[in-house]
This record gives sequence, structure tokens and C-alpha cells, in this order.
Amino acid sequence: MNHRMIGFILGRILMVEGLLLLLPMAVALLCGESMLPFLLPAILVAAAGLVLSGRKPPQRTSLYARDGFAVVALAWVFMSLFGALPFVLSGDIPNYVDAIFETVSGFTTTGASILTEVEPLTRGGLFWRSFTHWVGGMGVLVFVMAILPMSDGHGMHLLRAEVPGPSVGKLVSRMSDSAKILYGIYLALTMIEIVFLLAGGMPLFDACIHAFGTAGTGGFSCRNASVGAYDSVYFDVVISIFMLLFGVNFNLYFFLLIRKFKEVFQSEELRVYLGIVAAAVLVIAVDIAQMYGSFAQALRYALFQVSSIITTTGYGTTDFNLWPSLSKTILVILMFVGASAGSTGGGIKVARIVILAKTSYCDMRRLLHPNAISTVRFEGKPLNDKSVRSVHLFITVYLMVFTVSVLLLTLEDFDLVTTFTAVTACINNIGPGLEMVGPMGNFSAFSPWAKLLLSFDMLVGRLEIFPMLLLFAPSIWKRRRGTNRVLHLS
Amino acid sequence: MNHRMIGFILGRILMVEGLLLLLPMAVALLCGESMLPFLLPAILVAAAGLVLSGRKPPQRTSLYARDGFAVVALAWVFMSLFGALPFVLSGDIPNYVDAIFETVSGFTTTGASILTEVEPLTRGGLFWRSFTHWVGGMGVLVFVMAILPMSDGHGMHLLRAEVPGPSVGKLVSRMSDSAKILYGIYLALTMIEIVFLLAGGMPLFDACIHAFGTAGTGGFSCRNASVGAYDSVYFDVVISIFMLLFGVNFNLYFFLLIRKFKEVFQSEELRVYLGIVAAAVLVIAVDIAQMYGSFAQALRYALFQVSSIITTTGYGTTDFNLWPSLSKTILVILMFVGASAGSTGGGIKVARIVILAKTSYCDMRRLLHPNAISTVRFEGKPLNDKSVRSVHLFITVYLMVFTVSVLLLTLEDFDLVTTFTAVTACINNIGPGLEMVGPMGNFSAFSPWAKLLLSFDMLVGRLEIFPMLLLFAPSIWKRRRGTNRVLHLS
Repeated sequence: MNHRMIGFILGRILMVEGLLLLLPMAVALLCGESMLPFLLPAILVAAAGLVLSGRKPPQRTSLYARDGFAVVALAWVFMSLFGALPFVLSGDIPNYVDAIFETVSGFTTTGASILTEVEPLTRGGLFWRSFTHWVGGMGVLVFVMAILPMSDGHGMHLLRAEVPGPSVGKLVSRMSDSAKILYGIYLALTMIEIVFLLAGGMPLFDACIHAFGTAGTGGFSCRNASVGAYDSVYFDVVISIFMLLFGVNFNLYFFLLIRKFKEVFQSEELRVYLGIVAAAVLVIAVDIAQMYGSFAQALRYALFQVSSIITTTGYGTTDFNLWPSLSKTILVILMFVGASAGSTGGGIKVARIVILAKTSYCDMRRLLHPNAISTVRFEGKPLNDKSVRSVHLFITVYLMVFTVSVLLLTLEDFDLVTTFTAVTACINNIGPGLEMVGPMGNFSAFSPWAKLLLSFDMLVGRLEIFPMLLLFAPSIWKRRRGTNRVLHLS
Repeated sequence: MNHRMIGFILGRILMVEGLLLLLPMAVALLCGESMLPFLLPAILVAAAGLVLSGRKPPQRTSLYARDGFAVVALAWVFMSLFGALPFVLSGDIPNYVDAIFETVSGFTTTGASILTEVEPLTRGGLFWRSFTHWVGGMGVLVFVMAILPMSDGHGMHLLRAEVPGPSVGKLVSRMSDSAKILYGIYLALTMIEIVFLLAGGMPLFDACIHAFGTAGTGGFSCRNASVGAYDSVYFDVVISIFMLLFGVNFNLYFFLLIRKFKEVFQSEELRVYLGIVAAAVLVIAVDIAQMYGSFAQALRYALFQVSSIITTTGYGTTDFNLWPSLSKTILVILMFVGASAGSTGGGIKVARIVILAKTSYCDMRRLLHPNAISTVRFEGKPLNDKSVRSVHLFITVYLMVFTVSVLLLTLEDFDLVTTFTAVTACINNIGPGLEMVGPMGNFSAFSPWAKLLLSFDMLVGRLEIFPMLLLFAPSIWKRRRGTNRVLHLS
């Protein structure tokens, strides 16, 4: 472990958080609210960052895979611990554990809330709450890499640990340029959504909040009834489309920019993703048609809820907890499927599902024809055994963490559907589940330890398991120069 | 495909079923009931077997892996279709679809029932219902192999397709001798249990029924309240212990017979299996202690229910649907874990869970130390990538079949816990689930198509997925001599 370098990067990240806190402070000022709930944490986190960074940059800048995991995991934990302070200081969420849950839910773009009502919150608090979605969506380390100079070899470990999906590639040869391009596309799409929402007559503040929530696939709203409060077909359709857009692999937008249209239209993951959405919307619309009077209305609500759930955003325009079993079950399955790799969405990711399905199909063919030679291809390239094994590893550990979390959460003795979907909604970074934690419910009834467990699950989901789990490995904390050197040489 | 050879083996199996039907006929005679409900199907199935077998044995006796899958799947389907007839003819279960469900549930040792009451059934019907458990437990093809001469190479494909677990080995060099030894141990253990139950004062008929149900890890009883009807600590403990014994890999009993005690005590799967049982019993006993007055009573009910669920037997002595969430969730998790490989139990199997856990741990270590060399060992032998991949394949396809089944079953629009646990109980060959299909409920409320879907799931679970799924592969039905020859030469 290179402790100095880890401290340096962590320090920089905290200093960036200090800067980010100035934005909600400005909002608070503009709305005539106190700026102290943001100024004090900003100073505190910047000071902590300064101390961690050390007086001068470390001489040895080498970072190994496990350093990357440690930096990413610690960065997200520390950002959440500091980011929760404004809620406590403003009185929006007086209890610190509750504030941590809400902040983790924000940064991980989950959108699960312990608040029964959000409308009484301060404007500054509401803005910070949704802004964490935007920051967490594309990733805080990607952001730091975009603005801080860092050598490529080290950045790659960090990018791999933070960007979702089974395989992460650089867009252009320089890591920091890739990060800049990603954030540029992200910012541009967010701005376009704000413009569309303003054009429909949504106030600027609400438009920002919902654009942040959509972009990060988070789901925090400034209205108690979420997007349903506006009851507008225009907003429903605009937000549905943007949720789906933010659930697409951002590499595809880069291909569009450099006019590689063929790569976009031939993307296997994109086609499966849109196919699943279309199928789910149609089946649910037929299933709920009699609840909403007309098939057109049913289609509107089905499109919004399906887009919201598969992209793991979590906005709602209706209480899908009241839907028939078939529709509810489709939504629960979509919660696990999740959005595309390399998007801001959570879940298992469509790419992994496709790889699993194709590999299984091929392996089953081999049972029938043991000597037939067949290779599985994904996105036009043959899949090697190592990639397949890493997808299997992900699924296995994911299911184990899921099972243990459900088991622990049953100690709260709520009904099984609540327990099961609470963990589902948190580990897949969705927000609402069913029953008590359904779209019209919230997570306030859980004990403090259960809220921390679910916060851990949200981080596990957002960072795709391994960074968080490996924090518990003793070897990650040992400073073993010998081992490092061996690894360095090989 | 060698259609002649497949027909020959299928025919022999059906002729054996004709013989097996003479046993419940004898019981019916002894109890003064009509023997026609058994005699007519016996003649019919024997005649069908005679036709399928052909006039003389096929000259080409070669069997390929896919032939093995086809024989096993078709054998189980045909045996169930014919085996359901006695229930219809005796009037015990007048509806043929219901009778198929009950018979599949019997042969697959599931124990799920569409009957609201079993006590009014004819004695012959009750005997046949439980005898299917005993036949299905060790496998009908294993039985045929034990009594019919067959060359070793062909038998191995059949054994692999029928015996549960990730790896199947012969006990002794000759396949038919291995099958004889397995059935010998099976028969001996069943007889010992009958003796123990008689010693406790259970009537002979009831003792046979419950020994069949325990041996096959099935769960059909001749009492409405299952084993709970006797309300006896002695029977509870005896049946608990025998359920656990039948959930152990039968190879270990063979090692005991040939005095290889070291292999038994060093068995990793056995130790994990017993460890899980002990942990589950203790946690549940603490969780339900206040419901049963004393900790000793709680321990008694916890031991019985845990033994019944992890071995996928499904007997009950209390309504665990009323237990707290933690205990219920532990039972649901045990439903998926299942018994040991090479036992008569269902589920994923402890061996596969151990392999998954050890492989995942090793792969995660490799994330931290990319250049460290480590091999995963199971039962003292290093695991090769092919075995690991086949376990991953099993889990993936298992989860896919599970998900699709749950989705289809939601069309019945029962509550989500009922739907989820109905599929869980059937695909893992357990019997009872929760809520409507809980220990005091049954499967009668499902539509005929849903009963057939669940019957399919039971067969999928018992035959470990692939034989049943591959029935749908078009290539399994094609007679391609060219391909066969290529496969034969290689």
C-alpha cells in the first residue's frame, strides 16, 4: 500500500467536496437562508483535505489495483460522512445517522429517503441533496481526474474501481482527457434536460433538482409526490426519455460525437436494453390498462415507471405498489437487471446479463455437442474466459451480500416483501421498493443499525461490491514494501 | 441420436414401473380395496414398455451425452404420466392434471400437494403416493441399471444425468455394481428407519409411508397434520435424524462400509452441511423460544423444521409460516442451499455452495494480489476451471428458470410471497413454501396451467435442469448420423 499517495488523493477529493459545498451555499444565500450549514462543513472538509494531502505531493506515485479499491471506497465513505453535516446543521435532518443514510443515498444515486416529507426542507438543503446525485452519478474520482493532473497508469485503477460495468476502456489515449469528455457529455445532457423542463413551465429550482436526479439516475425530488406532483404528460415523457438516455453507456455518446454511428447502432447492449424496456412497457401497460381508464394512460404510466426502475432512478408518478402481481414482479426483476454498463445507473447491468445469457447458451450447447467448437462474442469481440469468470464472480458475491443483508434486516421483523425489496432497492441504487418502502413509503421506520447496513449496501451497489468488501481484507491495510516491489517488477 | 436404443431403455423403465405398481396393488388387496386402479395402469404401462422396447435389443448400443439427457427426461415424464392413472381410477384425485402434479411431486420427492386432506384417500393410493418418493429418491434409472445388464460407458451418461450434484463418480469399477451398492444402502437405511418407527409404536402402514417420505426426502404423509399429528418427541427426533442421514452423500456410507473412516470425517461437504444445520437450529431456536414456552421445545421444533427444509423433505411438525421473519428467512435460504450432492435431497446442494464460496474468495484475493498464485481445493483435490464453470452454469441457468417461472406464475395474481415460495418449494423439491402454500396450505388454488408449470419446475429441480431444458433443443430430436460419427471418432 502506498499510504502517502492514498492520503494525497483522498485529500484532494475532500478539498473538491469543500468547493462543491459552495454551490448549495449560494442557493441558500439567494433564497435568504442561512449559509452557515454549508460554510462550516465546507471549511471543515477542506481543512481535513489539506491535512490528508500533506505539505507536498508524494515522491512515490505508484498505485496498485488494491490501492485503487481502497481510495475509491474511502473517498465515498468520507464524502458521505462530511456531506451529511449540512443536513444536521440546517436542522433538515437533525439525526446524524439519518443524515448519513440520506447523503449516502444521494451520492450513490439511490434516492431512498428517511424523510416522510421533503417540501418543508430548506432550499439549500434540497439543492445539496439532489446535487449529490449529480456528483455521484458520473463519479467523484472521475471528476477529480478530469481536473487534476495525474499519470495515466494510476488513473486507470481508480476509473476501473469507480465506473460501473464489466469492462472499462479509455475513450482517448489520455485518462484525464477521457474523464473530461465524459463529464462534458454529462453536463451537456443535464443542461438540455433543464432547458426542456423550463420550456414546459417548470420553475428553475425544480428543473435543476429533477435534472440532477435524472442525470445521476438518483431519484430525489423536491416534491412529496415526486414527479407525479406535476401531473403533466409533457414532464412525464421528457423525464422518461432523459432517464432512459442516462441509462445508456456514455461511450456511445462519444461515438456519436466523433460520428461513429455504426458502433452505436450495432451496440448489442443498447439493443437489448431498449428491447427490455419496450417489452416491459407493453406487458405492464396491458396488465394495468383497466386501472387507468385508457390504454394511452396506462402506456404513459408504464413508460415512466419502467424507465425509472430499469435505470435505477426511482422517480414515481403513481404508486406501483398497488399494481397487479405481474407488473410488480416485472419491476422487481428490472431492479436487478439495471441500466447499461458505463452509464450512471445501477443494478447488475444489461451487459452482464447479456454475457451470462450468451455464455450459458453456449455452455448448454456444449453439453449436447461436447466436441463442437464455439466462441461467445459480445459487442463483436470474442469473450475470453477471464471476462466471463469475472462476471460470474460479480454475480456470486453480489448474491451473497444480498442474502446476508436480507438475513440481517429480518431482525427488524418487518414483512418479507418489505425486507427483500428494501435491500433490492438499496443494493441496486433504485430508491423505492414495495410495501413499507414502496413509492409512497420511506425508510424512516428502520433502526439506526439497519440504516447503516442499507447505507453500506448502497455503497456496495454503486461501487460494484469489491472496493467496499475489500476494505475488510486485512492485507489491504498492511504496508508491505516487499510485496509491492514484487508486484511492481512483474 | 440413437432412437432405437433410447426406445429400448425407455421401454424397460416403463416395464419396471408396471412391476412397481404391483406393490400398491397388494396393499389395496390386503386392505380390502379394489385392485383395478393399479392393475389396469400396470398392464397399460407394461404394454407400452413392450412396444417401445421393440422385438429384440438394438444392435447399435452407443449412447452419447445428449442421448443420456433425453432418456432421463423422457423417462421421468412418461413415468409421471402413467403413474398418475391410479389416482384418477381410484377416485382419490379425479382430475388428471391434479393427479399429474401429485405424481410428479411424488417421483421428484417434492412433496407439494394439491390435496386439502390426505386422510380420506384409499390405502392403496396413499401407499403408491409415498412409494413414488422412494422410487424417485435414488432415481429410477439407477434402479434399472442395478437390475438390467448394461455396458458401463452408456450407463455413466445416464447416471450423470440422474444423480444430483456437481460431480458423479462410480463407487466401484462396474456401473451396475455401483448402482446395486447405492440401492442396497438406501434399502437398508429405509428398513432401519421403519424398525425405529415401529419401536416407537407407529403402525406399520404409517411407518412405511414416513420412511418412504424420509428416504426419498419427499415429504408426503398419511396424516393431514404431517408428522405433527403424532405429537411425539421420539418420532420427531427419529425422523429428524433420518432426514439428515438421507441428506448426506451416499458415497460416504459406502466409505463407512469399506472402513475408510478418514474419508468420511474429512469430507468438506459433510462438515459444512452439519455446520449449517447446527447454526440454523440454534439461531431459530433462540428466535422462536418465546413461542414454544421452553428453549428445549423450541430446539425440538427448530431441529425438525431445519432438517426437513435443508434436506428438502418438507415434513412439518409446526406451522413455520407463523414464525418471526428471521426464522422464516433462514428457512427460505436453506430451501435454496439444499442437501449434499449424491444424496436423495434437492436444492442447489451444499457442494456447489462451497465451491462457489471458495472460488469467489480466491478470485477476490486475486483482485488484491494480481500475481499471487493460488489454487482452490475441494474435498482435498484442486478444482479445475471446467468444474467451476459448470457450477456457474448451473447457478445461472437455475436462476433464469427460477425468474421466468416466478414471472409466469404471477399471472395467477396471488401475493408475492406465495408466488415466490411456490416456485422455490417446487424447483428445490421441498414441498411447502410460505403463506398460501405454507405448511398448513396446499397448491390446490392454482390453475391447471400453473400446476403443469410447477410440475415442470419440480422435474427441472430433480434432474438438475439440463435434461429437462435440453428437451426443447431442436438438435436433440434430429437423427444426424454424420454428426454422430464425428463425435464417435473424436
